Amino acid sequence: MLCGGVGGARFCSGVVSVADEVTIVGNVGDDVEVLGLHVSPDLDSVVYALAGLNDEERGWGRAGETWEALATVSALGGEDWFMLGDRDLGLHLVRTRALRAGEPLSAVTQRIARALGVSATLLPATDDSLRTWLDTPAGSFPFQEWFVARRHQDEVDAVRVVGDSRPAPGVLDAIGSADAILIAPSNPYVSIGPILAVPGIREALAARTVPCVAVSPLIGGRAVKGPADRMLARLAGGTTPVHVASCYDGLIDALVFDEADVEHVDGLGVRAVVTKTLMRDDAAKRALAEAALDVAGAHA
Amino acid sequence: MLCGGVGGARFCSGVVSVADEVTIVGNVGDDVEVLGLHVSPDLDSVVYALAGLNDEERGWGRAGETWEALATVSALGGEDWFMLGDRDLGLHLVRTRALRAGEPLSAVTQRIARALGVSATLLPATDDSLRTWLDTPAGSFPFQEWFVARRHQDEVDAVRVVGDSRPAPGVLDAIGSADAILIAPSNPYVSIGPILAVPGIREALAARTVPCVAVSPLIGGRAVKGPADRMLARLAGGTTPVHVASCYDGLIDALVFDEADVEHVDGLGVRAVVTKTLMRDDAAKRALAEAALDVAGAHA
Repeated sequence: MLCGGVGGARFCSGVVSVADEVTIVGNVGDDVEVLGLHVSPDLDSVVYALAGLNDEERGWGRAGETWEALATVSALGGEDWFMLGDRDLGLHLVRTRALRAGEPLSAVTQRIARALGVSATLLPATDDSLRTWLDTPAGSFPFQEWFVARRHQDEVDAVRVVGDSRPAPGVLDAIGSADAILIAPSNPYVSIGPILAVPGIREALAARTVPCVAVSPLIGGRAVKGPADRMLARLAGGTTPVHVASCYDGLIDALVFDEADVEHVDGLGVRAVVTKTLMRDDAAKRALAEAALDVAGAHA
Repeated sequence: MLCGGVGGARFCSGVVSVADEVTIVGNVGDDVEVLGLHVSPDLDSVVYALAGLNDEERGWGRAGETWEALATVSALGGEDWFMLGDRDLGLHLVRTRALRAGEPLSAVTQRIARALGVSATLLPATDDSLRTWLDTPAGSFPFQEWFVARRHQDEVDAVRVVGDSRPAPGVLDAIGSADAILIAPSNPYVSIGPILAVPGIREALAARTVPCVAVSPLIGGRAVKGPADRMLARLAGGTTPVHVASCYDGLIDALVFDEADVEHVDGLGVRAVVTKTLMRDDAAKRALAEAALDVAGAHA
């Protein structure tokens, strides 16, 4: 499964609840250095969701989070624009130290996931430095500056993924040996796109011999959260399943999308799977995962 | 004033409550890199005490401290031997980032102190890397490994201060222009000794033209907390005021010590000032500071 942030992470927990031997390839294009710490928001969203540590209400970060360290940072005039909770900080400290000691991101990610009881394999798309930049009318910004500091208010003219990268160990093997491939309901441009931008990954998907099924992140043409709808409208020309599928041209065999979008499927070009896609609870996550796995032929 | 950790920090707050224009030169020999963060325990004890943020009951760290980040670190199998609270962590993050960006320790320390409302000037003895090592029958250890990880159970055969260092900007000026010099009731070997080991500082004290007054950290020959008494017994041959004064040979004009030690002053060699030295509350801190400043001739 290819997966981005929070919405994708919720879908991951559904998939893991109904499938064995799940390997998740996560986005690192929105990784950011904050206060000298290497933060991997998308990988952490997946880890927290799979470990049952995520805050379902707030939608990101850890449940029961506290903010004492950041309060000190603010009092000292430090870098406090990125919300780092105390529990979350512990992970960033461990990861950053490991990276500085030379451990690859894929190794430390897997070690962290295991330590928190996650049985699925979680791989960053790459161990190399890859950064998503947004070109907007107000200028070009790294992902988190656009997303958090500027609250993704700037319209996006183009998404650029910057950095020489190779797939992390295990990524191409996972794609090549999968019984089925899923693309989580994540933002095609800033969550899935940076994964596909790692040389070799898009090619591996295009050369697949098993079904690849994407789940649309839009419901009724609207994002549940975040800027996916605005980006699709501007960059793909619309927010229907057809526009979502166009982001994955040649890479998918089916698109799972919501009942609310059923009237907009002319020219989809791939198999249409219509179901309820709002993951309001565990049962809904599970049902959506089953729908995707069913069409992929990978469900028991 | 020359000052080490917690006991010294309590004395500092007494001095600051009765004197103007106080400059504190703090020990950095027990600084330590933990989880990739630069921790300066003695400087922080002074800052927290002067800012009124210190935990009086526990005796170190911040009041109302929480430990969520460290709990995550532990869960992930990370470095958790050194107790870093969440509030405390915020300071270490800000300091470490500033140091990595090239800001000298003296500048970031003063910036932190000001941000927390501290009016006294706090200077590290040096901006350079200086580390206190303890030679023990079990081997040689950096200070915090001996003190925290091994709970200072190993007897100390020798204290070595390692690293090329120069006094931080302002330190020699402060000593040279002072109306009076105080040495806080800190461990002479591992708190004050590393300050004196910075080339130029001992010489500046020896060349003083104003009184220098030390306050003994022992009461009845015993340390209030920590290993000062065991170290004095082993390295100086005893725990009386005479033994304490011998640690500052040629550097002090008077020693303030507790009533409980009044029978052991033969051969003290400097002026004896007998008073109550246990700083059980603010009034006691203030009284001890006044006693030291009175004999130094610096008290209004």
